[in-house]
Amino acid sequence: PSPMDAAEDGGDEEAQVWDQIKAEAKRDAEAEPALASYLYSTILAHPSLERSLSFHLGNKLCSSTLLSTLLYDLFLDTFSNDPSLRSAAVADLIAARVRDPACVSFSHCLLNYKGFLACQAHRVAHKLWSQSRRALALALQSRVADVFAVDIHPAAKIGKAVLFDHATGVVVGETAVIGNNVSILHHVTLGGTGKFGGDRHPKIGDGVLIGAGATILGNVKIGEGAKIGAGSVVLIDVPPKTTAVGNPARLVGGKNKPRQHD
Amino acid sequence: PSPMDAAEDGGDEEAQVWDQIKAEAKRDAEAEPALASYLYSTILAHPSLERSLSFHLGNKLCSSTLLSTLLYDLFLDTFSNDPSLRSAAVADLIAARVRDPACVSFSHCLLNYKGFLACQAHRVAHKLWSQSRRALALALQSRVADVFAVDIHPAAKIGKAVLFDHATGVVVGETAVIGNNVSILHHVTLGGTGKFGGDRHPKIGDGVLIGAGATILGNVKIGEGAKIGAGSVVLIDVPPKTTAVGNPARLVGGKNKPRQHD
Amino acid sequence: PSPMDAAEDGGDEEAQVWDQIKAEAKRDAEAEPALASYLYSTILAHPSLERSLSFHLGNKLCSSTLLSTLLYDLFLDTFSNDPSLRSAAVADLIAARVRDPACVSFSHCLLNYKGFLACQAHRVAHKLWSQSRRALALALQSRVADVFAVDIHPAAKIGKAVLFDHATGVVVGETAVIGNNVSILHHVTLGGTGKFGGDRHPKIGDGVLIGAGATILGNVKIGEGAKIGAGSVVLIDVPPKTTAVGNPARLVGGKNKPRQHD
Repeated sequence: PSPMDAAEDGGDEEAQVWDQIKAEAKRDAEAEPALASYLYSTILAHPSLERSLSFHLGNKLCSSTLLSTLLYDLFLDTFSNDPSLRSAAVADLIAARVRDPACVSFSHCLLNYKGFLACQAHRVAHKLWSQSRRALALALQSRVADVFAVDIHPAAKIGKAVLFDHATGVVVGETAVIGNNVSILHHVTLGGTGKFGGDRHPKIGDGVLIGAGATILGNVKIGEGAKIGAGSVVLIDVPPKTTAVGNPARLVGGKNKPRQHD
Repeated sequence: PSPMDAAEDGGDEEAQVWDQIKAEAKRDAEAEPALASYLYSTILAHPSLERSLSFHLGNKLCSSTLLSTLLYDLFLDTFSNDPSLRSAAVADLIAARVRDPACVSFSHCLLNYKGFLACQAHRVAHKLWSQSRRALALALQSRVADVFAVDIHPAAKIGKAVLFDHATGVVVGETAVIGNNVSILHHVTLGGTGKFGGDRHPKIGDGVLIGAGATILGNVKIGEGAKIGAGSVVLIDVPPKTTAVGNPARLVGGKNKPRQHD
Repeated sequence: PSPMDAAEDGGDEEAQVWDQIKAEAKRDAEAEPALASYLYSTILAHPSLERSLSFHLGNKLCSSTLLSTLLYDLFLDTFSNDPSLRSAAVADLIAARVRDPACVSFSHCLLNYKGFLACQAHRVAHKLWSQSRRALALALQSRVADVFAVDIHPAAKIGKAVLFDHATGVVVGETAVIGNNVSILHHVTLGGTGKFGGDRHPKIGDGVLIGAGATILGNVKIGEGAKIGAGSVVLIDVPPKTTAVGNPARLVGGKNKPRQHD
């Protein structure tokens, strides 16, 4: 398929997910009149996913000095001009639906998952950072840290179809890189090891799963499909499809013969 | 004593605690004029604990799209129609006062303990969930996760006289069960181990104490009166009156001869 | 130098840092019109650091029942009447700038670092506590716990030039003492070990570094310049310039011959 086809596929998937979200919101509004006005203003009043998401993020992240209208315009402008951000959001919605058994609908994720919302706000902050609009990117990071207790440096690079489950307390440092199809539980830190600058944060490969409360420190490489146990403190590289557990983390099966999983 | 007596006892206890709360608020308002208006609107203006609590929760959890009046009506309606929720709230207040040396008064807990407030909001969300009002229950869970950084699935079952101390970062999964007289410190996770649905979360017996940052994963059973050390990662059953510590957690005294405490 | 000189030096340093903050805000407002109004209202409209900080804290910590004007007056009154609180704030700003490679400017720290803001609000709450205005001090602690997910008991004593990096989930108990030049990462607990009152929390010496997710429990002494590894659970004294790691934490180099670092 040509790149044009791919773009159309992306658009089709976006349209399908958005149709589904509207159908869910309509059903919920009918079943629960107490939520009708809320569902109308956050979802049903909007002609597109990007407008609904921008409105919802603007309302969540605004303050008495950083107005919701300013944030709405900023989010909408960024999502409208960058289709890759929209397709990443759609991929994140699908990832939550597929990987989290507690995720009962797309609209539940869009409205209620602070990990999803924090990640979309980060995608916008990262875009701003790459355009050298750093003060605004940092202001956005700060609002996300206050409102969602998720602290992701705007320079950090995050792939698609990423699930931040529960998300409270996640910290991701400036030079961290997170691949595609990664699942990260709450209280996970991708941090540095000292007070020196430069490339100092973890690189997380595609398909990695990081358990609750894991702390990964320094410019280490977590290979494709690796699993990091809950509560681990990881200071070493972890090979692909390998599991690391404990404090300090060791590879299951041993350093020289780590056991590979599927 | 007949159930009627018990209900009256519950009512008596509720009345006594509420009288005490009003006396504390009156004393504090006189000693601290800067707080007088706050204490009047949150406590002294209300004729009952359920109204004061509903008002306070509505104010804490409202947003620009989920109005405080809607939440107030929802809380008040639920508390008014279910005496067991009111007696659970009173038992939680007493638990904080008895077990937390930093808890100087009932009103301090009612106004300031986000673990107490998150737990009462959960009790209402759980009631809604059991009435199949799931979209509203999940919206409430989400507001509690945003405002208090406490993420309790509305389907989780929680007993009476439960203390969530500090509470930041607590995560409780869909099929978790927490007994009576349990104390849970901050950053505690009662989570699942994978992406499969079904009964997948811990069952916590009466009188258990779970230390800060402990992570308990999977459908394991923590026996009555057990203690889980701070920072433990528990993947196994823990017998009653036994202590588990470490990552991965082991029983103090060994697997075959765990040492029982009083 | 006489104490008078020291006071003047403190004032000079405060003036220099404030001049720098205004220059940064002016530069950012010119480069980013979307932030101009925000930067004007939080920084450029104010004649002094104490007014800017009081305004910003008042806005962050207010609620529908605890008004921003009341909080502004309270902060400003306290900062104005106690130069030691102002010099501590300045020392904290410098500490963030020097020790955190992600801290690009003083204004970034002032506006965006919830650890910095939580610490300044704590300094005011601690002052109120020492004046027996306990209900107000506890209300402030509660707002900081809600808004920043940082829970510091107003009685806890905190030195100068302290860096709370990321800060989400930090819990500091009533009888804890933190020295000067201490760096504390997110999810750190300085907690108690039981339900008894009295002097029950850790004492942290000058220049200590406490890694992410470390839990230090009980009335233990962490000596000057010690380092506590990420994810450690510390239940013992740690000698000066010594590193403790693990769960439970052990001294690097062994209990009898702990290895000293510089």
